Amino acid sequence: MTDTVLTPSPSAPAAVGRIALVGIGPGSVDHMTARAREAIAEADVVIGYVTYIKLVADLVEGKEIIRKSMTEELDRAVSALEAARAGKKVALISSGDAGVYGMAGPTYEVLFQAGWTPEGDVEVEIVPGASALNSCAALVGAPLTHDFCAISLSDLLTPWPVIARRLDAAAAADFVTALYNPKSGRRTRQIQEAQRLFLRHRSPDTPVAIVKSAYRRRQSIQFTTLAQMAEHDIGMLSTVLIGNSNTFVRDGLMVTPRGYANKYDVAGDGTAHEGEKAGRSLSTGLHGWLDTLQAAHAAGTTIDQLAHQYRLPADYIRITLQDPLQPESDDTAAGETEA
Amino acid sequence: MTDTVLTPSPSAPAAVGRIALVGIGPGSVDHMTARAREAIAEADVVIGYVTYIKLVADLVEGKEIIRKSMTEELDRAVSALEAARAGKKVALISSGDAGVYGMAGPTYEVLFQAGWTPEGDVEVEIVPGASALNSCAALVGAPLTHDFCAISLSDLLTPWPVIARRLDAAAAADFVTALYNPKSGRRTRQIQEAQRLFLRHRSPDTPVAIVKSAYRRRQSIQFTTLAQMAEHDIGMLSTVLIGNSNTFVRDGLMVTPRGYANKYDVAGDGTAHEGEKAGRSLSTGLHGWLDTLQAAHAAGTTIDQLAHQYRLPADYIRITLQDPLQPESDDTAAGETEA
Repeated sequence: MTDTVLTPSPSAPAAVGRIALVGIGPGSVDHMTARAREAIAEADVVIGYVTYIKLVADLVEGKEIIRKSMTEELDRAVSALEAARAGKKVALISSGDAGVYGMAGPTYEVLFQAGWTPEGDVEVEIVPGASALNSCAALVGAPLTHDFCAISLSDLLTPWPVIARRLDAAAAADFVTALYNPKSGRRTRQIQEAQRLFLRHRSPDTPVAIVKSAYRRRQSIQFTTLAQMAEHDIGMLSTVLIGNSNTFVRDGLMVTPRGYANKYDVAGDGTAHEGEKAGRSLSTGLHGWLDTLQAAHAAGTTIDQLAHQYRLPADYIRITLQDPLQPESDDTAAGETEA
Repeated sequence: MTDTVLTPSPSAPAAVGRIALVGIGPGSVDHMTARAREAIAEADVVIGYVTYIKLVADLVEGKEIIRKSMTEELDRAVSALEAARAGKKVALISSGDAGVYGMAGPTYEVLFQAGWTPEGDVEVEIVPGASALNSCAALVGAPLTHDFCAISLSDLLTPWPVIARRLDAAAAADFVTALYNPKSGRRTRQIQEAQRLFLRHRSPDTPVAIVKSAYRRRQSIQFTTLAQMAEHDIGMLSTVLIGNSNTFVRDGLMVTPRGYANKYDVAGDGTAHEGEKAGRSLSTGLHGWLDTLQAAHAAGTTIDQLAHQYRLPADYIRITLQDPLQPESDDTAAGETEA
């Protein structure tokens, strides 16, 4: 780590160097953005993990290349800062998206520790790209059409109870879940624990896809189920996608339907729960639900019973009941389901 | 919906048409992938929401354009299938990633209903891109360096209790959270309910970024807090990013640190919980935790006490305790924190 501390000087604000944190997507140049290519082309210095440097070999000829091993993340950021302070343009490359478990976080942490500010002598740009989540989803079908989460099973910097609570929450709340860093030579039990936590809430038949080296030469895609996923070949280059309770596999494609409302009652997760009644099929959104809640409470259903019925915290039900219903606006905005 | 049913014929397997579901990224051509540009360039027919067609106007000259309104999602898929069956190459464009709350899911659903199979006369390709999550994160700093989830607040097709349970789970398990479709003219209370659910678990000071029209002409970025987020200008073109308990804002950048292990005890979420003791600071991963668990249980701590201490289900603690510890391998795989 450099111990130079930058004192921003308003009289000399010109940026003398720059760092672009470039997400190159899955690794095939076809799936890089124009801006990612351009940022690498503009660079004097290209820094990255050896494998990623190889993936963009044709773009980096004649440039200064700093290859780092996978464990030298902070070194990469320090090297980038040093080169940028020397007036160079630096491209620091990540696979996938530089912001998703990528170099963007560690780089800003190093920059802040070195006294860097955005107004100073080094400009920073994050170039977004398709993360492993996006690339793997595109290859297996359409698993991410509904709410999803990403959880890394790497416990080097994160205590296992934190990871376990996230797995438990994701399984219970029926998120489609992408597991990053699912397994390594050293870490073999984490995926089994993840499976165990998911099986407490989800059907053993829940579709799972294991994607390895997406869009690269050794790409492989395996479809399996929650019950069997831990028996498959999973490694550091794999991403594991676990469907939600509505996800299905058909003709070798994993698809999560957009909605719940057409298929299920207001509980909306495809399983009947004790004490649960079918809601109003045409109005299971917030306003319809608030309506149902008010009516049930007026008819004598207690807050605890409602909390149990909808599997939501009692104090949330209580405070929501106290908030008067507003008439629903007629202003039907376009685009409710696309972002 | 067409009611033609395709009978796949092994004697005539040549694909006569194709549908590319193209994620164009945030909307600026700079952030489209090479494959996305190519798929649009190759197309005879380009189908999409009017706004997205405008975003790629320079690429679609001379092509047949089918503009649909935001609510005509299934129509878009049906039009794509009809054109592809007529032997045309179709680019069906989505903003962001076609797989993330995008057209990939509805399109496969329409195709399956029409009897399509992957071996038939219409080829389908999903072209991945940077989703709103990736683009917005790149603009605000590095919020997605740790586990995250995406939740749509649109309750048109999803019952509110399902959405509320996901908000509650995401808040409790300390995910960085991206809210898609946070608000529309008609849906104004959903964001308030989201805030209410988050405030049950998270500090009112939790950093929040509201990004509107990322990488487009009217781009705006607002930093706020969980306590104040509902008072800001949020609309259909906004994505709301809520940090985790470690996320901070400095110099106009929102950053989530990579890990917990260096800062916190084994509970790992920055707050002390009743009955919780600091764990072994150098070994808070799965194996260290299992070790601690075994030792505590042997010393008389009950399973219920352990479940309470680590905020994990008692039956998970019980079954994990029954599974004997395996010696940890020395094979230190590279790249534990990058995917």
